[in-house]
Amino acid sequence: MPGPVYIVGVGLTKVSRHFDKSLIDLFAEASLKALEEAGVEPRDLDAVVVGNMLANSLGSQDSLGALLATSIGARYKAAFHVKAACGSGGVAVYTGYSLVASGLADLVLVGGVEKMTDYPTPVITTALAQAGEAEYEVFYGASFAALNALMMRLYMEKYGVSRDEMSEWPVMMHANAEKNPYAQIRRRISREDVAKSRVVADPIRLLDSSPIGDGAAAVLLASENGLKKLGKKPDVLVEIAGVGLAVDTVELSNREELDAIPALRYAALQAYNMAGIEPKKLDVVEVHDAFTITGILSLEALGLAEKGKAAKLVAEGRFHPGDKPVANPSGGLKARGHPVGATGVYQVAEITMQLRGDFPGVKVEGAEYGLASNIGGDGSTITAIVLRRVR
Amino acid sequence: MPGPVYIVGVGLTKVSRHFDKSLIDLFAEASLKALEEAGVEPRDLDAVVVGNMLANSLGSQDSLGALLATSIGARYKAAFHVKAACGSGGVAVYTGYSLVASGLADLVLVGGVEKMTDYPTPVITTALAQAGEAEYEVFYGASFAALNALMMRLYMEKYGVSRDEMSEWPVMMHANAEKNPYAQIRRRISREDVAKSRVVADPIRLLDSSPIGDGAAAVLLASENGLKKLGKKPDVLVEIAGVGLAVDTVELSNREELDAIPALRYAALQAYNMAGIEPKKLDVVEVHDAFTITGILSLEALGLAEKGKAAKLVAEGRFHPGDKPVANPSGGLKARGHPVGATGVYQVAEITMQLRGDFPGVKVEGAEYGLASNIGGDGSTITAIVLRRVR
Repeated sequence: MPGPVYIVGVGLTKVSRHFDKSLIDLFAEASLKALEEAGVEPRDLDAVVVGNMLANSLGSQDSLGALLATSIGARYKAAFHVKAACGSGGVAVYTGYSLVASGLADLVLVGGVEKMTDYPTPVITTALAQAGEAEYEVFYGASFAALNALMMRLYMEKYGVSRDEMSEWPVMMHANAEKNPYAQIRRRISREDVAKSRVVADPIRLLDSSPIGDGAAAVLLASENGLKKLGKKPDVLVEIAGVGLAVDTVELSNREELDAIPALRYAALQAYNMAGIEPKKLDVVEVHDAFTITGILSLEALGLAEKGKAAKLVAEGRFHPGDKPVANPSGGLKARGHPVGATGVYQVAEITMQLRGDFPGVKVEGAEYGLASNIGGDGSTITAIVLRRVR
Repeated sequence: MPGPVYIVGVGLTKVSRHFDKSLIDLFAEASLKALEEAGVEPRDLDAVVVGNMLANSLGSQDSLGALLATSIGARYKAAFHVKAACGSGGVAVYTGYSLVASGLADLVLVGGVEKMTDYPTPVITTALAQAGEAEYEVFYGASFAALNALMMRLYMEKYGVSRDEMSEWPVMMHANAEKNPYAQIRRRISREDVAKSRVVADPIRLLDSSPIGDGAAAVLLASENGLKKLGKKPDVLVEIAGVGLAVDTVELSNREELDAIPALRYAALQAYNMAGIEPKKLDVVEVHDAFTITGILSLEALGLAEKGKAAKLVAEGRFHPGDKPVANPSGGLKARGHPVGATGVYQVAEITMQLRGDFPGVKVEGAEYGLASNIGGDGSTITAIVLRRVR
């Protein structure tokens, strides 16, 4: 059984169009905040794990582990970059966890960072399409929105879900993000706004879709021994109680189900079993709503709603602030924003703050258990991470 | 202290211009060989870790963990892709090690794969340049060969090493590769051939440089518990006795030394300490000779030669077959070939076969300890992995 792994510091930048900040600037801002919280200097770190999707395709830069670790002064430490499209951040936390749990490292900084807005939208869209299968999907013009549209249409027709019911998800996300100072989009919308927004790939509309933005998030992980090395002891201690990672075929054509995200069920089951809990224990979740359909299917795969029921439950008021669990108090990918390779780290940082009681937006009072689930590709690489407030 | 991690299967493809094989074909060939050796089915795996540098840039394909794991039938298992330019393979072994040592996984397949030869050379060269620093090196036209040429010139001038002495390294590599059926280049050359080959970036000549090629290598890692799940028990058991990973600035301009690879000293020290050995215990090493100078500096950083002495020692016959240690009996990057993101996994697979006594080329008889060192960028991401024959 792996030893305990604690989260002892978090740092976020606002998700935005940071035309004035480079990839390194964003990474350093979030990372140094996380280190500052724990009173740790970069030279005290044993390892740095970077989650990023697009620096290669857009910035012509590989060697990100070395580049970003040394940019904050962690020279001669272990560092590397993990990649799973929009799921890179969650995988970075997962591998960071394994470095600590294995005993290889006592203090590990996990940073997700993405710099998207310096490039023209068609260039970004082409780069994002690498998350899909290159030879049998993208080659034939199936963009990422188009693939998700197939799943949304099937879901709505099979389970008799209306446009109006689906629209409550983005409405809830915008309302939550309004209070989150790190969120990219902070204005309320109505179901009518969603239904009337322009079609991206029928039935997906603009307000079903997460925006393009830059951002960085960091979490500092510590072993039991690592706790002794902190300059500042945390008031509230949060533990990674369970982790899960599961993959499915990248191409939708070989999936066993299209009205579900089966790999998320497997990842969540691992994380729940490791944490020794059932889904109903969760007080708060941050799920991966790249599109409305992705958020809805995530709730079902996590065991928080029956198949075909999640959208209707959201429309009836479930998962809103005050419920148990609250879904995406951050505003989610839809409104907090989706700096792709950083998103999974944002989620873990946000859940950590909820459990500590210091999230600066919609708060989930007294939360003890939280879960973050991050998705790479159209449901192909999934991480589920359960956090627990220890004391 | 991490639990023991064993290598219970290896698989290689020949390094070559495989115009008839895709990235998936190559990965599957090497991976299924490794699984076959141990009598393990893909569905028995807990995790798959992929090392690759160029599938993004050349093949427009992200999501490699999911793509390659599901291609061999490891659906719903953990899988992800690690990236550190030409050091991706070594980092994949390092992270695979941590998954097993942490208790997260009992059986982990680590596969390195690279598909380079379907693309025009200038396209490949541009993609490879991403290993360097994009804004202050590559932007100004400093190619990868050019950066290594600076280091080679400094080394030769500072330590009074002649062209003829430097040339023995590639001569030895070609001689070793002649006997390796997996090697890309299997013909002997002379020091004169090296000195007369065309200049790539003065003083680096064509025969100082590793070739472009496709290939895949896989190693199957097992915990103590994982050993019980094998369909075939290994005759000789090989253990990962120590691992080290260290980074340095990507840009040469901020290095503390230019006639050395300091991060390799740090990575090696970690690996030696963990294994509880000194360098003189090593019977065989596979080092990262992307260029002649990289191989020479690696021997020095590993503590196998004093600073400034390695090239002269090689020219005097040291590190050749029969010596202790033998360097690169595979033929090294120079002649076995350098399918960039796969190279680090080739090295670990080759050392494993040396310790088992079944490497099908230059053999190091009775070898008990071996080391593989892999480099990403121009000395920026380094792994050192010490293997030991247990019984």
